[in-house]
Amino acid sequence: MNRLWSSVTNSLTPYVPGEQPKNIDNLVKINTNENPYPPAPGVLEAIKKACNKDLRLYPECNAQIMVDSLVEFYKLKHPDAKLESENFFIGNGSDEVLAFALRAFYCNQKPLNMNDITYSFYTVYCDLFGIPYTIHPLNRDFTVNVESFVKAKGGVIITNPNAPTGIYLDVSQIKYILDNHKDDVIIIDEAYIDFGGTSCAELIAEYDNLLIVTTLSKSRSLAGLRIGYAYGHKDLITGLNVIKNSFNSYTMDRIAQVAGAAAIDNWKYYDIITDKIIRTRQWVTAELDKRGFKTLKSSSNFVFTTHPDYHAIDLARGLRNQGVVVRYFNKPRINEYLRITIGSDDEMQRFFDALNKEFGI
Amino acid sequence: MNRLWSSVTNSLTPYVPGEQPKNIDNLVKINTNENPYPPAPGVLEAIKKACNKDLRLYPECNAQIMVDSLVEFYKLKHPDAKLESENFFIGNGSDEVLAFALRAFYCNQKPLNMNDITYSFYTVYCDLFGIPYTIHPLNRDFTVNVESFVKAKGGVIITNPNAPTGIYLDVSQIKYILDNHKDDVIIIDEAYIDFGGTSCAELIAEYDNLLIVTTLSKSRSLAGLRIGYAYGHKDLITGLNVIKNSFNSYTMDRIAQVAGAAAIDNWKYYDIITDKIIRTRQWVTAELDKRGFKTLKSSSNFVFTTHPDYHAIDLARGLRNQGVVVRYFNKPRINEYLRITIGSDDEMQRFFDALNKEFGI
Repeated sequence: MNRLWSSVTNSLTPYVPGEQPKNIDNLVKINTNENPYPPAPGVLEAIKKACNKDLRLYPECNAQIMVDSLVEFYKLKHPDAKLESENFFIGNGSDEVLAFALRAFYCNQKPLNMNDITYSFYTVYCDLFGIPYTIHPLNRDFTVNVESFVKAKGGVIITNPNAPTGIYLDVSQIKYILDNHKDDVIIIDEAYIDFGGTSCAELIAEYDNLLIVTTLSKSRSLAGLRIGYAYGHKDLITGLNVIKNSFNSYTMDRIAQVAGAAAIDNWKYYDIITDKIIRTRQWVTAELDKRGFKTLKSSSNFVFTTHPDYHAIDLARGLRNQGVVVRYFNKPRINEYLRITIGSDDEMQRFFDALNKEFGI
Repeated sequence: MNRLWSSVTNSLTPYVPGEQPKNIDNLVKINTNENPYPPAPGVLEAIKKACNKDLRLYPECNAQIMVDSLVEFYKLKHPDAKLESENFFIGNGSDEVLAFALRAFYCNQKPLNMNDITYSFYTVYCDLFGIPYTIHPLNRDFTVNVESFVKAKGGVIITNPNAPTGIYLDVSQIKYILDNHKDDVIIIDEAYIDFGGTSCAELIAEYDNLLIVTTLSKSRSLAGLRIGYAYGHKDLITGLNVIKNSFNSYTMDRIAQVAGAAAIDNWKYYDIITDKIIRTRQWVTAELDKRGFKTLKSSSNFVFTTHPDYHAIDLARGLRNQGVVVRYFNKPRINEYLRITIGSDDEMQRFFDALNKEFGI
């Protein structure tokens, strides 16, 4: 209790991000779901071009250059979604977009519904904004209990594919939830969608209460630049802008805007590296099987895995001794699992070598 | 009233930033207090160096590289402030830092006190966070009514030098307010301090309730990169981090971090361009005098001026016809004033030429 802090500051337990070691030169860093491949060459070129005297000037405040790229991209990849400029909102990482969305669409009157095992930032936002929440336990096989969400009162936020499980929920199931929550905003956090799921994008033409949030940190190799976006009905985007312009009008700097646009434009490059990551995931899953691990079916750039003969915490520590950093969550239901990011083939070979050296498996 | 918005979203009136015209090639843009000179060459070099494959990785979440530069800088320029790493907080523009600070230190129990004429974002934050506020009218000469703040209950936020007036409040007066608010956080927003005022930095060693907020957008020519920071007692910085890590853990991207550090390191360059801007301001003020304008004494990179024979709105429109964009606020007490950013000598000559061509003054 600090006398100079507000009551909310005194009451909060902040989010704890995964470890970001200072020097990673000799580490295999497969703990925070970064992409092992570099950003598209076009992204680096765009940044170098924008690195000039115009940095003295404020940026355009809606990141329109990136919105324009997104409109083109979705016309090509999701034509039935019929998305225009007014359907997109850009933010400083999907964390910021999610924070704005929770403040924009939920209040203390109705709870926000979420899975027990999901992105742990959601409850932190709720505590910050005074939003009550209802926790829905995943089924025993870690799939989403859809009926429970259908019956619940209030808003819904679901990560799809889920994290840290990696399990994908079919679009038909999300449609089922949307049909039963016409007056609540349903947020689908598709941070990992490019690695195996089908986006709900097309549902936006049909549902004015669906907001999809995603990030350029994972499939676009740009965790270092903090770029996320949301898309949905234009009234939801207007609501997001009301909150943003009551908090910080210029969230996207000039460099991030052009880099984000270039990352969207260079989708062919990213399709290729995404395919590589999916192939590596298949190989890693098969190798884990051979070593006795039980791995959930992943549609993400990570796998969630457990071994019957070793405690997950011991595995994590042993791997760390060998310079391999994976993510361990000391939480009920998942404290015998490790979340392992899919790195390059070489990195994953070093992961298996470390397992062998430390545990003989 | 939108059925899908939260009650707070339905109630807010967001901040309206100054106009950012798309194509400024033929304009004299002196409306949003940008610096007419480019960032230091070292800043652009630092960005180009950071533009590499590591952008795939999350940034360090406290912008430690920039904090390290700030510690060195303040040791040199403000040794008596005795500032260490734990005294600094970096954010995505000072607007974000201010938003975090208001959420961290004020609540609905006591009002936040501010001037009637000041940065108009403060009341917007209060509305967003449900913080009551008390407005203290500036004196008739637009100086701060210090006694009114001394007597008031609750926190205090003051821009110094004030905007849009440009008038500087002496450190002794801020000390007087601090002495009478030992259990409230006093925020001094020093966005414009480098253009003529004395920073309160040294008071931090003495007052645990003082938070200074500033920006790299003005004196460091980096409005396009969105970098601001706060400094104060370490407990205040911890409070800011509680809020930040409940909202968005990675607010500062890799490029902004190294650019911010380089901008602080290259202070010699910035001292030179700041001196140029101050000299231009002196010349502009004298020229405005000759033309019959009444200009408040500015310690900022802008002047706030009025003309007895012309309505400010007409002057703003006439200048716009000539391609000169200045800031006009349609608000009580100041609706006969223009806020004019100090550009380069050449830009200010074009401003005077436009005045002459349009109004014959």
